Amino acid sequence: MHDSSQQALGQRALVTGGTGFIGSHLVEHLRAAGWVIHILVRPDGEHMARPSAGVHIHPYRGQTADVIEAMERSRPDVVFHLASLFLAQHTAQQIVPLIETNVLLGVQLLEAMSGAGVKSLVNTGTSWQHFHSDSYLPVNLYAATKQAFEDILAYYADAEGIHAVTLSLFDSYGPGDRRKKLLRLLLDCLETNGELQMSTGEQILDLVHVDDLCEAFLHAARLVRDPKHPPMACYAVSGGERMSLREIVATLERTAGRTLRIDWGARPSRPREVMHLWDGPAMPGWLPRIKLVDGLKALLNERSHCV
Amino acid sequence: MHDSSQQALGQRALVTGGTGFIGSHLVEHLRAAGWVIHILVRPDGEHMARPSAGVHIHPYRGQTADVIEAMERSRPDVVFHLASLFLAQHTAQQIVPLIETNVLLGVQLLEAMSGAGVKSLVNTGTSWQHFHSDSYLPVNLYAATKQAFEDILAYYADAEGIHAVTLSLFDSYGPGDRRKKLLRLLLDCLETNGELQMSTGEQILDLVHVDDLCEAFLHAARLVRDPKHPPMACYAVSGGERMSLREIVATLERTAGRTLRIDWGARPSRPREVMHLWDGPAMPGWLPRIKLVDGLKALLNERSHCV
Repeated sequence: MHDSSQQALGQRALVTGGTGFIGSHLVEHLRAAGWVIHILVRPDGEHMARPSAGVHIHPYRGQTADVIEAMERSRPDVVFHLASLFLAQHTAQQIVPLIETNVLLGVQLLEAMSGAGVKSLVNTGTSWQHFHSDSYLPVNLYAATKQAFEDILAYYADAEGIHAVTLSLFDSYGPGDRRKKLLRLLLDCLETNGELQMSTGEQILDLVHVDDLCEAFLHAARLVRDPKHPPMACYAVSGGERMSLREIVATLERTAGRTLRIDWGARPSRPREVMHLWDGPAMPGWLPRIKLVDGLKALLNERSHCV
Repeated sequence: MHDSSQQALGQRALVTGGTGFIGSHLVEHLRAAGWVIHILVRPDGEHMARPSAGVHIHPYRGQTADVIEAMERSRPDVVFHLASLFLAQHTAQQIVPLIETNVLLGVQLLEAMSGAGVKSLVNTGTSWQHFHSDSYLPVNLYAATKQAFEDILAYYADAEGIHAVTLSLFDSYGPGDRRKKLLRLLLDCLETNGELQMSTGEQILDLVHVDDLCEAFLHAARLVRDPKHPPMACYAVSGGERMSLREIVATLERTAGRTLRIDWGARPSRPREVMHLWDGPAMPGWLPRIKLVDGLKALLNERSHCV
C-alpha cells in the first residue's frame, strides 16, 4: 500500500513563515506526512508561535549568508516559502519591512537554492495581485511586492533551472488563528454580543480552511518535482464556496444558532476594496474538502472549549 | 520665440543617480534647459563625481524618511530616477545592495511622491528585461530587479495616479565615462597598443551617445506631463545604428586610423550573452542625433587631449 505519507518519509522541507498561522499548520501536516522539517526564523519575530519539538530551527537576521547557511545545513528537497508581511494598507514607515520580507528574503532564498543545487520551490502569492481579475493589477502594495518577487523568480527559473509552483491565496481561516481578520471579529462579536460596524457587506470572499490549504501546499510539493509538470506555474487556491460577506455572516448565524448585531453600511468600503475575485487556474489534482459550515462549526466548538 | 529651454525655466527636477555617468550629464542638460536641480545622493557613494555648483543636494541614507524629506524640500515637477546598481553578473554578497538600490529606493521615491502630491516620474529600465526579445525574460538579476520595480510602479500608477515614462536603455557612451565597459577597454587598448582578448564578437550592440540619452530623458519629462500621453509607458531608447561588436571595432579602427590588436574568440561568451536586441517601441517625438562615428571621433579627441 502506498499512501502519500509513506512516500514522503525522510523528505526534507525548509519552511519560511513556519511560525505563522498557515506555516505552523503546514509544519504539522508535513510532520504527519513524514517530512523532516527545517524552518527559517527571525530571532526577533513578533507573534511567533512556539515551534513544535523536532523541528530544526535556522536563524534569519536579514543576511544572505544566514539563508545560505540554512540551505546548506538543511539540504531540502522542497522549499516552502510562506513568510510574508501582510498589510491591507501600508504607511511610509512600512516600506522597508515590506520590501525586505516580501522581496529580499525570497531572492535570498533563490540565491541560496541556486548555490546549493536545490531546485524545487513552493511559493505563496495572493489573489490580490489580480484586482478586477486583471492578469496583473495589484490591489495594494503588499500584492505588488508579491508580484515583484515573482518577476525575480522568473529569472532564477530560466537561468538556474529552479522549478516553482506559486499558490495564490484568498482568505484563510481555521483553529489557532490569532490574526485580527474578519472571522475573528465575527466570532468575538458572537461571544461578547457586541455590535459590529461593517461596510455594505457585498464584497465576495473566498474562505479556505487552513487544513485544505496545507494539503494544497503538500500537493504543490509533488507537482513541482514532477518532470511532466511545467517548471513555473501559478494556481488559485479557492475554497470552492465564494460568497458575500453578508452570506458568510448568515452562515455563521445559522451555524451558531444566534444572531449577530451588525450595523451594515456604517463603515465605508476600504479604498480599492475587492468586490470581484480572481478566477485563476485551479491546481490539477487538488480540491478543498472542508465546507465552510463545517469549518465554522469546528471553530465555534474550539471557542466554546476555551471560554 | 519658444524653445524648450525657455519653456522649462524654473521647473524643478529631483534626480537620483545624478552623480553617475548618465545622471551627471543629465544634470548639465537640465541646467542648460533652465531647470532647478535637486539630487538625492548617498553620502558614502562610491565613484561619486563632484556635483555641479548650484545643484541642491539631499542626502539618502537608506531611510524612507530621507526620501520624503528630499521630496518635500524639492517639490519637483518631475522625478528622474536613474540610480541603479548595474551588475552584468552578481554574487550572493550583492543581493542586498541590488534589492536596496534597484527596488527599495524606487519604492521609497514613489511613496514620497504619493505623499507630496508629485505625479510625474521618468524611470530608467534596461533592454535586458527582454532576453531573446521576450515581452519579459530577464537576462540577469539586475534586469529582474528593474522589472520588479516596474511591478510596484504599476500599483502606484493605478492607486495614486502617478504618471511614468520608463526609458529602456541599451549601451551608452560619451565623454567622462569612467565605467569599465567595452568602449573604454577598446580606447585603452588603442592607447597602449595592448592585445585584447574577446569573444567571437558577433553579439549585436546598440550604443547610444549620452547627449542623445539626456535629450531622451528631457523629452520623456515633457511626455509624462502631457495629458494626451498614456499614464504609463515604456520606450526603447535606441541609438539607431545596431551593429556587431566586430563592426564597432572596425568603425573605431577606421575613425582612429589604426588597427586594434584583438584576439577574437579567445574569450568564451558570457552565460546568457545577449545576441539579439529587443525591438521595443520607440519614443514618439525623439530621435538620436549623434552618429557612432562622430561620437567616437569626439571621444578620441578627448583622449588625445588628456594624454
